[in-house]
Amino acid sequence: MRIAVDAMGGDKGPRATVVGAASAVIEDPSLEIQLFGPLQQLKDEISRLPRPLVAATSHMHLWDAPEVISQSMRPSEALRNGEASSMARMLECVASGDAAVGVSSGNTGALMALSRRALGMVAGIPRPAISTAIPTRNDGRCYLLDLGANVDVSAARLTDFALMGEIMARHVDGIAAPRIALLNVGAESTKGAASVLQADVELRRISGVNYCGFIEGDGIFAGEADVVVCDGFVGNAVLKASEGLARMLVQRVQATFEAHWGSRLVGLLARPALKRLKNELDPVRYNGASLLGLAGIVIKSHGSCDAAGFHYALKRAVQEVSRDLPSRLEAELVHRRSVSSLAGGQSLPGQAADR
Amino acid sequence: MRIAVDAMGGDKGPRATVVGAASAVIEDPSLEIQLFGPLQQLKDEISRLPRPLVAATSHMHLWDAPEVISQSMRPSEALRNGEASSMARMLECVASGDAAVGVSSGNTGALMALSRRALGMVAGIPRPAISTAIPTRNDGRCYLLDLGANVDVSAARLTDFALMGEIMARHVDGIAAPRIALLNVGAESTKGAASVLQADVELRRISGVNYCGFIEGDGIFAGEADVVVCDGFVGNAVLKASEGLARMLVQRVQATFEAHWGSRLVGLLARPALKRLKNELDPVRYNGASLLGLAGIVIKSHGSCDAAGFHYALKRAVQEVSRDLPSRLEAELVHRRSVSSLAGGQSLPGQAADR
Repeated sequence: MRIAVDAMGGDKGPRATVVGAASAVIEDPSLEIQLFGPLQQLKDEISRLPRPLVAATSHMHLWDAPEVISQSMRPSEALRNGEASSMARMLECVASGDAAVGVSSGNTGALMALSRRALGMVAGIPRPAISTAIPTRNDGRCYLLDLGANVDVSAARLTDFALMGEIMARHVDGIAAPRIALLNVGAESTKGAASVLQADVELRRISGVNYCGFIEGDGIFAGEADVVVCDGFVGNAVLKASEGLARMLVQRVQATFEAHWGSRLVGLLARPALKRLKNELDPVRYNGASLLGLAGIVIKSHGSCDAAGFHYALKRAVQEVSRDLPSRLEAELVHRRSVSSLAGGQSLPGQAADR
Repeated sequence: MRIAVDAMGGDKGPRATVVGAASAVIEDPSLEIQLFGPLQQLKDEISRLPRPLVAATSHMHLWDAPEVISQSMRPSEALRNGEASSMARMLECVASGDAAVGVSSGNTGALMALSRRALGMVAGIPRPAISTAIPTRNDGRCYLLDLGANVDVSAARLTDFALMGEIMARHVDGIAAPRIALLNVGAESTKGAASVLQADVELRRISGVNYCGFIEGDGIFAGEADVVVCDGFVGNAVLKASEGLARMLVQRVQATFEAHWGSRLVGLLARPALKRLKNELDPVRYNGASLLGLAGIVIKSHGSCDAAGFHYALKRAVQEVSRDLPSRLEAELVHRRSVSSLAGGQSLPGQAADR
């Protein structure tokens, strides 16, 4: 399986992506990595690989892309001036079929815009939605979407998100009837934003989807749903606040065990347990967000992730390729729309007024 | 100081409110509590008070309110049919001046609507905003608003929230120049919802406010601001998700120390440290949300809180009364508006198109 990697995105620079890619190859030698970035920088990173990872280099192919899309670049600017960037060239490699999937830790808005132009969309979806799995109680996980780029969305877009999340949870995670919920400010059907109330009505009309109604913020982590749908502003705020809170709590756990000499002693004994705990809370565990609705597979890795996190994002990429997610989305969404037209053409995703 | 208490709101029934109120009185015997609820139920709870709290009963006055506003009741229904409810009668007591502040754990939307009708608003604020303090890194705290009832708000409303939060942090918490931030999906001024981008422009124009620009979700817990402003949908989702995550993490900490016999032994030794930690993470610590913009003081206690949490909400009530928050809001907001009219009458809160 060939994977195109934008080596230049992310706060930790190409070191994290190159080391992460190399360790993924060591784990799974069937991978071939196409690395995009300024050639000399890539060569430098390859030459600095720790000895146990050197064997991976025969599966890593370097492609020169002299420019880098910065975190602050607007999507429109990336579209106009980004052709020579590592991100754009990585996506061309996916578009041409030379790689089955692309992965980047870079600027999310630019990645969405460039991906959409390079790969196109499926089934009338106007723009990609972003989704990632977050850990829930009882060792579960839950997809949250959208996560960042679709703000002020209509009911039809929320319904799209729900259907795409449903298809992903069913095909990628093998959940027979994923529980779908809409994030709202109350569990009653009378409270909330107009678009959310309307999406609730639309989702109740759609057959064959295990739609469970509204969920409040605390329901996400309680494991009450497999897919939680909201607009990109809300999803982004919830995800980032959760990351910040988890970091704060882990620090407090550590501080608690360092506060007094008695605690310090216990802390020493408790170190293995605390380490396990920290790993469990580590957001990296589920690194690798999906750009849903593209006619190709692109994985967004967290901008602050390290090599281990990037490795995890590559695993997510392999998983989505092996389940052929875009074809599933295309087939199922188109089928739903044709059924709905036959049934009387009520307002449904892809046919709604905001397209 | 006289405090009117709606004894009937909250998931734990009148037990939590009556016990919480009694323990507040034991701690501060200058308090006089006006308890509202079905008389017989109140009497039953009073008669069941544990012995150390019995002395409080001479400071607790029972008022019959035969009806209860349920969690599912719509605000419009509460306005129409709620006169005989414990919530409405508690608010009448505040409106008539028989109590300095009212406290309820009940239906938030109903509380907002009934409070607004009973007490009126200050300085052209159309509806109350809800704010609560949340713990941040380095033992700090941060006010988040709005938290539940104002969805789909305009830039002018977000600016209102910012100014009200600023005044509260300055007067109630004694912070000389509170750092104010707008929650957004990116720190750059080009990304985000239109209302948030416009509020950013408005806040930059206002002199004498320490406005720090945009903040992302993780910045809330990092302690980057003293007041974080967002619409009620986003604030509610972030707050509830955070509560859910904190609960999940505390459970995992406990589970980690119970998983293996080695850990269990350590867990036994670590118990005092874990207990301290649990108290630190306890959302109850900061129970008591403010309904800002009312021409009177009303505190919303968390629906799921126990007696200790309700006690904390009463302390918050005392604090707001002693700082006379509504008068500060009225004086400062009216002053700002007159200054801004003299300066050329640009669009400012209270004068904006959506009023």
